[in-house]
Amino acid sequence: MSTPICLYDTTLRDGAQGKGISFSPAGKLRVAQALDGFGIDLIEGGYAASNPKDVAFFEDVKRLELSHARIAAFGSTRRANISPSEDTGCQALIAADTPVCTIFGKSWTLHVTDVLRTTLEENLSMIRETVDWLRQQNREVVYDAEHFFDGYKADRDYALASLAAARDAGAEVLVLCDTNGGTLPHEVFRMTQEVAHELQVPLGIHAHNDGGCGVANSIESVRAGATHVQGTINGYGERCGNADLIPVMANLLFKLGSGFEQDLKMERLTELSRTIDEIANQRPNPKSAYVGDHAFSHKAGMHVDGVRKNAASFEHVPPDTVGNGRHILISELSGTSNVLLKILDMGLEVEKTSPEVKEVLTELERLEKDGYEFEGADASFYMLVQKVLKNHRSFFDVSGYRIINEYRKGDENHLAEASVKIAVDGDVEYTVAEGDGPVNALDQALRKALSRFYPAIAQVRLTDFRVRILDPEHSTQAKTRVLIESTDGNRTWSTTGVSENLIDASWEALVESVEYKLFLDESQS
Amino acid sequence: MSTPICLYDTTLRDGAQGKGISFSPAGKLRVAQALDGFGIDLIEGGYAASNPKDVAFFEDVKRLELSHARIAAFGSTRRANISPSEDTGCQALIAADTPVCTIFGKSWTLHVTDVLRTTLEENLSMIRETVDWLRQQNREVVYDAEHFFDGYKADRDYALASLAAARDAGAEVLVLCDTNGGTLPHEVFRMTQEVAHELQVPLGIHAHNDGGCGVANSIESVRAGATHVQGTINGYGERCGNADLIPVMANLLFKLGSGFEQDLKMERLTELSRTIDEIANQRPNPKSAYVGDHAFSHKAGMHVDGVRKNAASFEHVPPDTVGNGRHILISELSGTSNVLLKILDMGLEVEKTSPEVKEVLTELERLEKDGYEFEGADASFYMLVQKVLKNHRSFFDVSGYRIINEYRKGDENHLAEASVKIAVDGDVEYTVAEGDGPVNALDQALRKALSRFYPAIAQVRLTDFRVRILDPEHSTQAKTRVLIESTDGNRTWSTTGVSENLIDASWEALVESVEYKLFLDESQS
Repeated sequence: MSTPICLYDTTLRDGAQGKGISFSPAGKLRVAQALDGFGIDLIEGGYAASNPKDVAFFEDVKRLELSHARIAAFGSTRRANISPSEDTGCQALIAADTPVCTIFGKSWTLHVTDVLRTTLEENLSMIRETVDWLRQQNREVVYDAEHFFDGYKADRDYALASLAAARDAGAEVLVLCDTNGGTLPHEVFRMTQEVAHELQVPLGIHAHNDGGCGVANSIESVRAGATHVQGTINGYGERCGNADLIPVMANLLFKLGSGFEQDLKMERLTELSRTIDEIANQRPNPKSAYVGDHAFSHKAGMHVDGVRKNAASFEHVPPDTVGNGRHILISELSGTSNVLLKILDMGLEVEKTSPEVKEVLTELERLEKDGYEFEGADASFYMLVQKVLKNHRSFFDVSGYRIINEYRKGDENHLAEASVKIAVDGDVEYTVAEGDGPVNALDQALRKALSRFYPAIAQVRLTDFRVRILDPEHSTQAKTRVLIESTDGNRTWSTTGVSENLIDASWEALVESVEYKLFLDESQS
Repeated sequence: MSTPICLYDTTLRDGAQGKGISFSPAGKLRVAQALDGFGIDLIEGGYAASNPKDVAFFEDVKRLELSHARIAAFGSTRRANISPSEDTGCQALIAADTPVCTIFGKSWTLHVTDVLRTTLEENLSMIRETVDWLRQQNREVVYDAEHFFDGYKADRDYALASLAAARDAGAEVLVLCDTNGGTLPHEVFRMTQEVAHELQVPLGIHAHNDGGCGVANSIESVRAGATHVQGTINGYGERCGNADLIPVMANLLFKLGSGFEQDLKMERLTELSRTIDEIANQRPNPKSAYVGDHAFSHKAGMHVDGVRKNAASFEHVPPDTVGNGRHILISELSGTSNVLLKILDMGLEVEKTSPEVKEVLTELERLEKDGYEFEGADASFYMLVQKVLKNHRSFFDVSGYRIINEYRKGDENHLAEASVKIAVDGDVEYTVAEGDGPVNALDQALRKALSRFYPAIAQVRLTDFRVRILDPEHSTQAKTRVLIESTDGNRTWSTTGVSENLIDASWEALVESVEYKLFLDESQS
């Protein structure tokens, strides 16, 4: 039986170095929870000494109850000619108070002489002493051998000596990094195999995608003996990105039959990918291997025909093994069962063959064509089903609303004012409120208007508000999808709205949020 | 000396099967010209019998004066139990009147029995007779062995027999296709090598990206003996796409040292990628290997520092060898060296130690703390530097603006109206405009107001509009960051704005976009 693979995620550190990627403090914690829930072993939380956001994360994450994953703080070997205990970076690693510290060091002579500008001998001391110092303070050390493959090509003996220094000082695993990302798979295989033969120590791989081979390089390194795999969810990362852990994990499990330290929730692979994109506010790549929206889409007539006859004819794995779905134009089969499952999930009783299921599907397809997306908007989906089942009643009529947003030079306070006119059983309420911005004002005015009729609405507050521009090439005329999350203290729910007009899209989501709350209160009373 | 590699592009056929990809008749001709100009050997123009657009292409392309590339028409082996001369698909291949015909046939027994629903023996006859018939009519035949790798795993002897049938009937090259795209690189290597050993015939590779290994699979097949490589530009294609020819070509040339039938214009690789994206109306993937906008972007301070000392330290190839450029990103992770490099990049002359560099950095840090992010907003960064250097002047004063967004029940058209009051040298302009939403209305009104003073503003239009809610846990009171992209037809630039009020953030970005345009026009006149 071969050694199980340790999965090491660096989305929060190396991933955050990608252009356009940044996480809020709350977002970082949500990422950690999602990774832990999926079965990742080690989560690199950030640079120990980089910025206040990373430092806060190491503090905050201790309060999360992670089921399995451990947190690693990232840093480097000490600077030249001082001791680790005097080095602020090393001190920060200890201050992060994580069970694991990951440090990178130099294996490429060019980097030692041209970038660090120190001697080759001093670099070896920096590696040895830093690992040793961290071990003395009971940290498990992951050693990232930066630019290992380039260094090995340039000066094999020195690159190996740098690894040996980390090993001898007590590093748990030596990670061979293809930092510039241009190494080809067969080279990674050969060099990993040679190192494994020379050093007899657990090895890891950290690949980048500059040659378009990040996934393949990770797989080849494992085939050659690596048992620790680093990467980021969705391949976030500097330049062309890190190796994308999503297809790496799926290939290792489904194609190589690898074992892992922890059971992976593969049927939630697609959900994991989308969740991280949502937190990082990235548009999901529809062509992503395994989890992309197009990954099991069949357009060519022959392929659709083939898949109908035998799914394996044009699908390398069954889509539901990774929580994805098959998309075939004008085929309702796969859709119906999904929708049915979702409706049963809601606790409603319907038959698979009932006309209502078909009606929900038709309505869904129409809305999705208009830009709606219900994956993140369960309450909107719930209300849609209730409307089709004729369980829905209107709690109030909207006569109109207006927002005014005004700025006058010299006036400190920009005005954002909303007026809302509603009626409940013919009883009209016309209210006005101010806010920090137009949507905030609209939210205030709506709840103010409703609270006379439905006092419970006063408990509701918004906890999240997201905006996504669809078809961005149409710029400010593009459609806008708004997603809001609300809570009444007990429950949390999400609703969505779509319009060319951001205000109208927000209004739709706000109204649906309030209706959902009233509907639920009524059906439980 | 090894056999030079033949590059076979199927962007117009397999690429066009990707979701969202379609080419106009004129677009297909432009693609063919771009491929020929770059050095591609064979261009698959489409299905010979598929649709009128493909048929017209084969006619029209004859009038193009291609320097080197030859055109291939695509089809399949004859249907079961008729002769090729009676088969409409085979007739269409001849009618396309191309020097090369590419046909696919079945190598996987599952496909023969479950999809074609014919006998294994008849399938071999279909392959043999179709190739033979095309050869008799002086066509060069490329034989695509569909699902070869899956077929080889399922029934090695039968898969080899299907290849031998094509070879014996006179096919020029046998292309091993990973049609489902899930084969791993080491398997492709081993099977290609075994086939080369068995059959002694020129082999090709046609890979897909369902396991994220399309590029690596192409490279591994070449290493094992394939001399013909199929793929699409930018990896267009069904599901997760075909192997992306862009990194495949670059890896073969720069990393494996392969020779090609024709010299490749590698310094135009980025241009080729962008041209095809533009013709297909696709947004370029900024993370694409070699040619993406981020492929040589450096964000982390240490990387920027390293690149400045020695470019090879963090770049696997020099960006100009593929016609790409280096970009230094500004972010919270970066320090003085990033800022300095970026300012030098802008063509401004400052010293590293000058107080202005420090002042820019301080201003940047202050703004980033407020939620600004400049890595996607080059024009905003440019204007910031000009302000610090006191080069900036105000082109107009804003006296105020107002937006009204109103909905009344029964009124089909929601109103989004913006009024803007500005002054240029005391000359006041007060305008009003409608839009699809509040930001669109604001954009219309601002440009309407300015065009009397600055006619060039009429050329400016927005090409992208993005909204990001910061600290989403503060919901509708959270800060909003807006990013807009503008163009005047020649240049494209991005600006940003941040506020708790979405309208105000949008206004800030709109004003800065217009100011940038005016500033640049003035400094160039």
